Amino acid sequence: MHSKSYITVRYAETDRMGIAHHSNYPVWYEVGRTDFIKLFGTTYSEMEAAGVMIPLVNLTCHFGLPAQYEDRLIVRTWCIHMTAARMEFTYSVKKICDDGTEIELGYGTTEHAVVDSKTFRPCSIKKRMPALYEKINGNIKEIV
Amino acid sequence: MHSKSYITVRYAETDRMGIAHHSNYPVWYEVGRTDFIKLFGTTYSEMEAAGVMIPLVNLTCHFGLPAQYEDRLIVRTWCIHMTAARMEFTYSVKKICDDGTEIELGYGTTEHAVVDSKTFRPCSIKKRMPALYEKINGNIKEIV
Amino acid sequence: MHSKSYITVRYAETDRMGIAHHSNYPVWYEVGRTDFIKLFGTTYSEMEAAGVMIPLVNLTCHFGLPAQYEDRLIVRTWCIHMTAARMEFTYSVKKICDDGTEIELGYGTTEHAVVDSKTFRPCSIKKRMPALYEKINGNIKEIV
Amino acid sequence: MHSKSYITVRYAETDRMGIAHHSNYPVWYEVGRTDFIKLFGTTYSEMEAAGVMIPLVNLTCHFGLPAQYEDRLIVRTWCIHMTAARMEFTYSVKKICDDGTEIELGYGTTEHAVVDSKTFRPCSIKKRMPALYEKINGNIKEIV
Repeated sequence: MHSKSYITVRYAETDRMGIAHHSNYPVWYEVGRTDFIKLFGTTYSEMEAAGVMIPLVNLTCHFGLPAQYEDRLIVRTWCIHMTAARMEFTYSVKKICDDGTEIELGYGTTEHAVVDSKTFRPCSIKKRMPALYEKINGNIKEIV
Repeated sequence: MHSKSYITVRYAETDRMGIAHHSNYPVWYEVGRTDFIKLFGTTYSEMEAAGVMIPLVNLTCHFGLPAQYEDRLIVRTWCIHMTAARMEFTYSVKKICDDGTEIELGYGTTEHAVVDSKTFRPCSIKKRMPALYEKINGNIKEIV
Repeated sequence: MHSKSYITVRYAETDRMGIAHHSNYPVWYEVGRTDFIKLFGTTYSEMEAAGVMIPLVNLTCHFGLPAQYEDRLIVRTWCIHMTAARMEFTYSVKKICDDGTEIELGYGTTEHAVVDSKTFRPCSIKKRMPALYEKINGNIKEIV
Repeated sequence: MHSKSYITVRYAETDRMGIAHHSNYPVWYEVGRTDFIKLFGTTYSEMEAAGVMIPLVNLTCHFGLPAQYEDRLIVRTWCIHMTAARMEFTYSVKKICDDGTEIELGYGTTEHAVVDSKTFRPCSIKKRMPALYEKINGNIKEIV
């Protein structure tokens, strides 16, 4: 199970090379994570309301072909590893052509710490959100 | 008294027209406000720590000549009106040429409400930060 | 006739006040213009490919209620004035509640010059893209 | 030899976690590259004017401690590898404390292809900008 997020490249996201600036990819990945969490019956907002934040620890992005203004993109998001204190996601970004075929533009990964939203100290998502933890881990077992 | 903020246009701030995207101007104005508050012996961070936030209510921007990547800009910021519940700023954005002369690129205004940082309800900056209130108002009398 | 653009507030669009930063509104307006042009059978990309760019000259934004992360927004866009050398748009931004009702968050306007994409000098959209010019002007007559 | 870029965290760069959003780091790295190129007697703008662009191929970021609004940061940039068709940079981001000491917040790398600015096809920076190529490579030999 993975999420699919549809994005149309905004004018403001382009740079003077004429392509989408690379700093948008982590933003699009984040759109992907937002949709991924929704697949499991909760929202990122609710996670934060429950006192859990997942700030980034590591980010990698590979850029193949560039995205252009008005390109329609699909971002696929997978959670590939999750412990009580850590989450890891991978992303694929593809362009959807007019005939419906897809062209890979790039891919990436993010690693997140799980921290308390007030103290910024490590906390256990397994304890704070046990249902979400079990659901995502169950899904990882199926895909990995 | 007004503040002067120095900005070099970032690559990520350009768009496919080859110029700095207009959505950066409100960001640069905000850099200007940050420096303006510092002139009066406090910081925007300290204002928020004191429970006061000043979200935008109105924004106007006039764009004359475009800014380009690596252009060195100077943003001048004035507070032109301040009550217990409202603040209004104006901004001028100019390009600093290699010979030190300045070319006007644009100007703008922002109006802010004064709200409590927890409730988002109107509060009095005159009561919460009386020293800052007096200093800025004293300055307005001199410049207006 | 006006366009409707659907936007979900991104995490990266929020600021430390916990709300969508005001500099995103001109970006969302631009998403609105992109969709508006599509209503008339062409695209903004095609306009630029035809040598016509429409850089901003003036921007106004009014901010009422704040938008939050994951809020679903609808941006409505109208072109309210168009000459050979100038275009003017208005925008309405509303939040779509879970029950489908809408709450107004803000509105704004943008004025654009029409310039040649190579020289940045004024040019006539009436001459360069006569069909688009007639269609949009016909629509303005109906709505104004 | 490496460049030092000074950045003050902008309000617009923060997110609702209250910290600088991670998507700003690649933007700050780019500020670092801009300053790095200047060390060698040319500018990134001049490189592009000479027909050479260096789009990103790979990006990695490690995030340790978060950066806050108004924090003063120093970004150090090194070019650690350069061939006719490829450039690789590393970056260190540190916070400058009030007493002048520095705290590491994170670090990262970027790999770039060298392409022709019109065709987007690989080209040789060794041939296009031989003086810059020799200078940077001479510097790499000293630091690696």
